Parts: sequence; C-alpha cells; structure tokens
Amino acid sequence: MQDLIEQARNGRPRAIARLITKVENSRSGAAKIVPALYKFTGQAHIVGITGAPGSGKSSLVNELAKALRRRDHKVAIVAVDPSSPFTGGALLGDRVRMRDLSGDKGIFIRSLASRGSLGGLSQATAAVIKVLDAAKFDTILVETVGAGQAEVDIAGAAHTTLVIEAPGMGDDVQSIKAGILEIADILVVNKADRPGAARTVRSLQTMLQLGQTMMVNHHGRSMQTASIAPNGSNDADNWEIPVQETVAIEGAGIEDLLDVILVHKDHLRATNGWLTQEKLRSRREIEALLQARFMERFQTAVSQDDRDQLITSVANRTTDPYTAVAEIFNQIKT
Amino acid sequence: MQDLIEQARNGRPRAIARLITKVENSRSGAAKIVPALYKFTGQAHIVGITGAPGSGKSSLVNELAKALRRRDHKVAIVAVDPSSPFTGGALLGDRVRMRDLSGDKGIFIRSLASRGSLGGLSQATAAVIKVLDAAKFDTILVETVGAGQAEVDIAGAAHTTLVIEAPGMGDDVQSIKAGILEIADILVVNKADRPGAARTVRSLQTMLQLGQTMMVNHHGRSMQTASIAPNGSNDADNWEIPVQETVAIEGAGIEDLLDVILVHKDHLRATNGWLTQEKLRSRREIEALLQARFMERFQTAVSQDDRDQLITSVANRTTDPYTAVAEIFNQIKT
Repeated sequence: MQDLIEQARNGRPRAIARLITKVENSRSGAAKIVPALYKFTGQAHIVGITGAPGSGKSSLVNELAKALRRRDHKVAIVAVDPSSPFTGGALLGDRVRMRDLSGDKGIFIRSLASRGSLGGLSQATAAVIKVLDAAKFDTILVETVGAGQAEVDIAGAAHTTLVIEAPGMGDDVQSIKAGILEIADILVVNKADRPGAARTVRSLQTMLQLGQTMMVNHHGRSMQTASIAPNGSNDADNWEIPVQETVAIEGAGIEDLLDVILVHKDHLRATNGWLTQEKLRSRREIEALLQARFMERFQTAVSQDDRDQLITSVANRTTDPYTAVAEIFNQIKT
Repeated sequence: MQDLIEQARNGRPRAIARLITKVENSRSGAAKIVPALYKFTGQAHIVGITGAPGSGKSSLVNELAKALRRRDHKVAIVAVDPSSPFTGGALLGDRVRMRDLSGDKGIFIRSLASRGSLGGLSQATAAVIKVLDAAKFDTILVETVGAGQAEVDIAGAAHTTLVIEAPGMGDDVQSIKAGILEIADILVVNKADRPGAARTVRSLQTMLQLGQTMMVNHHGRSMQTASIAPNGSNDADNWEIPVQETVAIEGAGIEDLLDVILVHKDHLRATNGWLTQEKLRSRREIEALLQARFMERFQTAVSQDDRDQLITSVANRTTDPYTAVAEIFNQIKT
C-alpha cells in the first residue's frame, strides 16, 4: 500500500485509480488508506460545483478544467450523483467528458454514484478527494447534482462552492432558494446568452441583498460564507458573493469566473477562512465516521432477528420508535 | 398533554397546532408526545410529493387537496423545504396557499423549514406526520422541494410518492435521473399544456422501461416500488409506475391523478405493500433516532474543549479522522 501511495504521489494514474477504488468501495478500505496518506493532504484547492439539472453544470466543469490546465494547474474532477444508484449513468458522464479532456496527464476524472446510503456516498467522496489531494492535484473540482441537503453535505468538503443557475429555471420565488446562500461562495448564471438572463442575475442580486439582512442573526456556515461579518471582527466573513455570467458551451466568461475562484482562494488563505473551512470539514467528517461506527456496533450488538422483531413491533404500533430506541440504546455497549 | 392529544383527536386546530409546535421544536418534545399518541397512528394515507423547483408542485398540491376535500377526505398538507433555513420563506408559502384553502376545518396546512441538520428536519417531519395521523386526517400530503437524497429520506415517510416533472426541465440525459425510479410510485408531468410535454412523457416512459430491465438486480426500496417482481412472488412489487399529465393551475387532470393515487393506496392495502412500507419507515426512524441519541451521548461524554482540540488536530493533519474516531469511539461508554 505504501508503494501504491508513493506511485500516486508521483502522479501515476493507475495507482491513483486503484487507491480511489479501494477507498470508494468500503469504509474499511478508506480506514486503511486514508490514515496512511492523510498527512499529504490539505494542499489542494477543493472547488464544489452544484446546480439544478439543466443548468449546464457539466459543460461548465469541463471548461473550468481546461482553463485551469491552461494555467498549469493539475486538475481532478469528481462528479457525484447522489440521485443515481447506477454506475452506468456515472460512467456515461465520464465518457462524454473524456472526449474533450482525455490524453492529458494533468487531468484526472472520476464519477461516483450512490451505492446505498447518502452517508456512504459523502464519506466515499471525502475519501476520494483525499487520495487526489495526496496525489498532488492543485485543484479538485467536485461536481454534484442539485442543491438539496445531500449536495450541501458533499459541498461541505469544498473550500470554494459555486452554485450554478440558468435563465428560466431559477426565477420563481420557490426556486431562488435562500438555502443557496448557505453554501454559495460564488453564484454563476450559465447560459447567459439566453432570454431572461439579465432578470436571473438581478433576482440573484436582490436575493443576496435580502440575505445579508436576514442572515445577520443566522447561525452556522452561512455566517462564514455570507458577506456579513456580524461582529465585524472576522475577516473571513468579508466575502461578497459575486454573480458571474458564463456561456459554458462557448467558453465565454470562463476565464473571468476562474479569476474570481482564485481570488476566493487567496481570500481564504489571507484570512482565517481556509482553516475555518478545514475545521468545519474535520468536524463533519468525525461526526459522520462516528455515526457509521456506531451503526455498525448496533448491528453487531443486536441480532438481525431482534432488529426485525423491533421493527415489526414499531410498524404494527405495539411500541413506539422513541421507547424502542431508549431500550436498545441502554442495551448497546460500545 | 393527554388533554391536548384528546382535543387534537377531536379535530381542534389549535390543539393540533400546539402539538406540532412541541414535536417540531425539539427531539425531547417529540420524545414525550409521540409515545403518547403513537397508538392512534397508522391510519392516514401519507402521500409524498416531490419535484424540481418550477415544476408547479405547490399548485398541484393545492389542487389535490381541494379534490380530496370534494371527496370528503380530511386533508393535511406538510410543506418541507430542506434547502431553506428561513421560516420566513415557509410562512410565505403558507400564506400563498392559505388564500385558496383557508376557512375549511377539514384541511390543515403546515410548513417546515430546515433548522440546522437535515436529520433534525426529517425527524421533525416524521413527528409532525404522526400528530396529524393521530388527529384523524385521512390523507397527509407531504410536499418537499427537489429530488435529492434529502427528499428521498423525507419521502421515506410516505406510502405513495409522486415525482413531479414539467416539460423543458427534465428532458436532458442528466436530469432524467434513474434515481427517481427509486422513490416514485406515480410520475406526474405537470404543465402538460406546454410545448414539449409529449416528449417529456415519452422520455419518462422510456426511462421506466429501461429501469425495469436495469433494476432487476438492484437492491433496496426500488424492488418494492418498481414494477418488477424479481422472484414473481411478491404482489406488492407488481405496481406499474404510471405517468399522469396535469395542468394544475387549471385543475386539469387532477381528478384522474387522484384516482390513480387512491388505486395505489388500495393496491398497497390489498398486497403486503402497506406493511412493507410501515416496516421500512420504522427501520429508518429507529436508526435515525439511535444516531441522534448517540451523538448526544458523544457530546456529553467528550467535553467541548476535547472536541475542539480533536477537530483542530484533524484540520491541521496532526491526526487523521479515522484514527481520531477510533480513539473517541473506544472512549465513549453508552
């Protein structure tokens, strides 16, 4: 394994791919490999890219990757689809992208599809990012579908998060979700040559202004990424979320967008934002791994038969879930 | 509290609202109230409705609620927005809906916005549904934004799940997500008077046919809701996912859709699908509550200072998350 890690550190694609497969397929694989390479991580700039289907997210990711290559960054793309349990779809995505980007050793592309629980996917994604980070990719683009909590969790691994909108999709009250303020460091209106683009940009800007007011009293990561420093003391909070326009399929606006991404990186580095982000990620990862271990313990301590019986008695209202859980909980010894 | 439950059982809206507030705001509130009313639950037909922003989901929910009222069902609507941490938005949603539906005691409407973790929101939603079930609502419509894993979790509480699409949003390869097969019992193409509606319907039908083939070897809930009985022995699997067309704002197609929803309910009742669904829900709920209790235990057993120190040492690469978690885990006694 040390040998494989050494090869991956030297940029050997097959070694990287093999390590990824190992950490992706099981938590026990990750539990062996991540500790061995963790000390090499923390160097890459991790950029999360999320947005609704149809926003042209994948084209945008391709163009960003090419632009990063032109600036001599080593780039990895991790495409995560929490909604798809089929590797088939993810592989198709790979091939479509590969057509443009293959044959360049400075780029590495991997798709991850859901294989069971989202927790499993988030953890697999986190582990895959670490392999790529240790393999000395300068920038890791993590693309996720949608903008729900699943994506928020996965975007939690990123230093810089882009939320992609497109004209005509995100204009109604419901869809311009206050929630995106919580995760976005940069908003992108892609397909900016379409009718209604100016209106989408204006809506987003209005929402950002509104959000600044609303979020003064709001807790959590929003405090860190929103453009308000509630107590005026934290430089990392002083990031004004920009709205960038692109036409990804024509490559328009990509260089400007990349400039803004790198400005955000510099901003994080110059303030304590980078460390804050690393701490947040570390906390989430510790909690997720603890929960996973606990569930394994539960499944070892309580037999399949007992679990089935318990589930049945809750399902048929012989007992209620809270009482059932109180009983099991007292029964399990960690 | 018994008094409040009694009043809620008699359909008193203020008692229902007070119980909901109690179970929604804290797990300890739910831990007191749910055990007291759980025996009254299991009667309501819980219908999950999910779909991308812009699919016209809220109008559809309104029209379904009105149609159910015309058939003398008592109806509750629970609108869940995992992406929004702002009650403000949810309340706005309430009011917009209220304009049409208020003044009728056979209908009850509640919005839930994310307040911190998604786990918290899923659990709050599950508890709110139980209050409404105990309060003798015949049908509970649970509306969630999007179609990510978050929504899958929340839809997990439903007997019948509708996934709403609209023409022009869901036509590209990426957006017709195989994942929706996992959760959909009924697919709805809303805004069916728009150009491209026929194409959307065809795409969904093609996907369903493809999915039947692909999912033969696929595990999980898909086995139960998809229209394949892998071993030919389980009647509950024999549900062919229909594609229904509606124009919600004109009320078109709503009665037909409701017919199909009720056919699915009868199908679940007639096969073992209803019980299978209750068991699945019970299992998820037990697991989620166990995890929540475990995390509380962790926070009690390991001091804030120790947790902060641990997080910092993972963030600065002094230790790795897997090693850190192995150490804590051995340290915690349940």
